[in-house]
Amino acid sequence: MRIVVALGGNALLKRGEPLTANVQRKNIQEAAIALAEIAGNHQLVLSHGNGPQVGLLALQAAAYHEVESYPLDVLGAQTEGMIGYMIEQELGNLLPFEVPFATILTMTEVDPDDPAFQNPTKFVGPIYDEYDAIKLTEAKGWTFKKDGEHWRRVVPSPKPKRLFEIRPIKWLLEKGTIVICAGGGGIPVVYKTKANRFLQGIEAVIDKDLASSMLAKELDADMFIMATDVDAIYLDWGTPHAQRISSITPQELSLIDFSDGSMGPKAEAACEFVKSTGKKAVIGALTQLQDLVTGKAGTVVENK
Amino acid sequence: MRIVVALGGNALLKRGEPLTANVQRKNIQEAAIALAEIAGNHQLVLSHGNGPQVGLLALQAAAYHEVESYPLDVLGAQTEGMIGYMIEQELGNLLPFEVPFATILTMTEVDPDDPAFQNPTKFVGPIYDEYDAIKLTEAKGWTFKKDGEHWRRVVPSPKPKRLFEIRPIKWLLEKGTIVICAGGGGIPVVYKTKANRFLQGIEAVIDKDLASSMLAKELDADMFIMATDVDAIYLDWGTPHAQRISSITPQELSLIDFSDGSMGPKAEAACEFVKSTGKKAVIGALTQLQDLVTGKAGTVVENK
Repeated sequence: MRIVVALGGNALLKRGEPLTANVQRKNIQEAAIALAEIAGNHQLVLSHGNGPQVGLLALQAAAYHEVESYPLDVLGAQTEGMIGYMIEQELGNLLPFEVPFATILTMTEVDPDDPAFQNPTKFVGPIYDEYDAIKLTEAKGWTFKKDGEHWRRVVPSPKPKRLFEIRPIKWLLEKGTIVICAGGGGIPVVYKTKANRFLQGIEAVIDKDLASSMLAKELDADMFIMATDVDAIYLDWGTPHAQRISSITPQELSLIDFSDGSMGPKAEAACEFVKSTGKKAVIGALTQLQDLVTGKAGTVVENK
Repeated sequence: MRIVVALGGNALLKRGEPLTANVQRKNIQEAAIALAEIAGNHQLVLSHGNGPQVGLLALQAAAYHEVESYPLDVLGAQTEGMIGYMIEQELGNLLPFEVPFATILTMTEVDPDDPAFQNPTKFVGPIYDEYDAIKLTEAKGWTFKKDGEHWRRVVPSPKPKRLFEIRPIKWLLEKGTIVICAGGGGIPVVYKTKANRFLQGIEAVIDKDLASSMLAKELDADMFIMATDVDAIYLDWGTPHAQRISSITPQELSLIDFSDGSMGPKAEAACEFVKSTGKKAVIGALTQLQDLVTGKAGTVVENK
C-alpha cells in the first residue's frame, strides 16, 4: 500500500519538553522506529508539523537585532529543511542502505481571498507587552491578540489549494523513494490576483493535516494516517464517559463538535480524504503505527 | 546539455550588503533572470553557497538564550530549505508554469579521518572576547582562532566523499525537473567508524564548489559552471599586469598558486571535473551566464 503518514507536532515534540536539537532528535528517533516497522511492507510518504520549530526560529530572530526577522514563509522553508533532514537521517539509519530517500521542499498555494485572512487566529513568535504590540502593529502591519496576560502576533490559517511539487513527489514514489514533503503544511504562497502569475510567499500558516489530506488524495494513497500523541478520537473526551471510537464514517464524524480541542482539523482532513477517495483515514498514536495500518488501533474513518 | 550551475555565495549576497530577507530575495531575482535565459535550452541543476546564511542563523541562535544553539549540520539543513525555496520560487516565476522544480535536501558524506578535522580553518558565527572563547571551548569543545582583534569559532572543511540523494536527483532530471540541491556543499555527515553504518551530522562545512564538482560528475553533466561575482580567473590578479585567462587546461591551472585568494577551491573543483569527465568547467560572472555557456566569457577549463 501507498501510505501517507502525517507526523503531528506533538508526536515529534512532547508537550512541555524544551525544543533543543537533542530533544527533537530523540523524538524523531522514536518516530523512526515506528515508521521503520511499516516501511518494509508499504510505500511511505511522510509529512510533519512545524509549529514549535517555527516558533523557536521566530524567537531567535527576534532576539538578534542586527538583521530584521525573516518572514514566516522563509522560516517555514527553514523548518522543512531542518525537520526533513532529521527524519531522513534517522529513518535512513534503520532501513537498508539501498532505500532511497528524498526531502522535497513544498510550496502550498492558498487563495488570497480565503476568509482566514480576515480573521488571523494562529499565535506565532514571542510574547509582547501592549506597548510593543502597538509599535509592531504600526511598523510591520502585524496583528496581535491577547494570549493570557500578554500579547502575541496572530497570523491567518488559510486552506491549502495546490501542492506545487506534487509531480516530482509522484515521480520519486514511482522509483521506490521514501519522500518527506509538505512539512508544516507546505510554505504558504499566493498569486496576488487571479491574473497575476507571480507567485510569492505570504505570512500565514497552513494546517498540516489538511495539506497532508490533499497530498494523500493527489498521490492516490491507499491510506492516510495522522500520527499524533493520542491513541484515537474519543466521544465525551475528558469526562468519565469518554469512549474510544474505533471506526466511524465521514458523515458521522462530521456531526461531532470538536470546536474546543485540536481534533477538529484532523477530523476534517480525514473526512475530506475518505469522501473524495473512498479509502481509509486513520487517527491514532505514532507509537502504535503498525496497528493503525492494520486497523487494530486508532480511529478508522471509512465508508461503510 | 545538462549543466550544473554552482551559485556562489557572493553571487547571491554582494559583499557588504546586509543579510536581510529582502536583499537575499532581490539578489536571487537577479540570479533567476540569468538562469532563466539558459533554462529553455538546457537541463539545469543548481547548487548554491550558504556561508553568510549559516552565519546569520548562528548569530540569531546565540542571541536567544532559552534554547541552546543548534549544531551546524542542522543550521545547514535550514539554509538548504531557505535558499532553495527562494531560488525555486523566483526562477519558477520566470519560466512557463509547466516546468517542474524540486529542491532536494542533500547530505554529503565526509571521512571522519579527513586531515581537515585536525586543522579547523573556517570561521562561523559570532565574535567573542578571549574569556568567552575559553569558556565555550571548555563547555562545548569548540575550537577558536583569532579573527582580527576578536576570537571566532573555526570548524573543519573536509572533502566531500558521497552525495546521498544522487539517485532521486537523477530520476527527477530524467523527468525534466529543474533540481536545486547540494546547497552549502550538502549537510556534512559521517559514519563514525568504518564498521558503523550509523550516519550522523558533524560540525563542519563542506566547500560547495568541490561538492558541486562531484555532483556534476555523478550526474554526467555536460558542463559545470561556477557562477560568482568575478568575471574570470586572472593571472597576476590585483597588479597592473592582471591578465584574464579565457581557456586553460587542468594541468596548467593546477600549476597556478591561488593560496592567497578564494579562487583555489574553484580551480580545484574545475580541475577535478575536467580531469575525470573530459567535459568543460567554466568559472565566471553569474550576470554573464549565457556567455559562459557558449564560451564567450569566463575562464573555460578544458582538455586540449
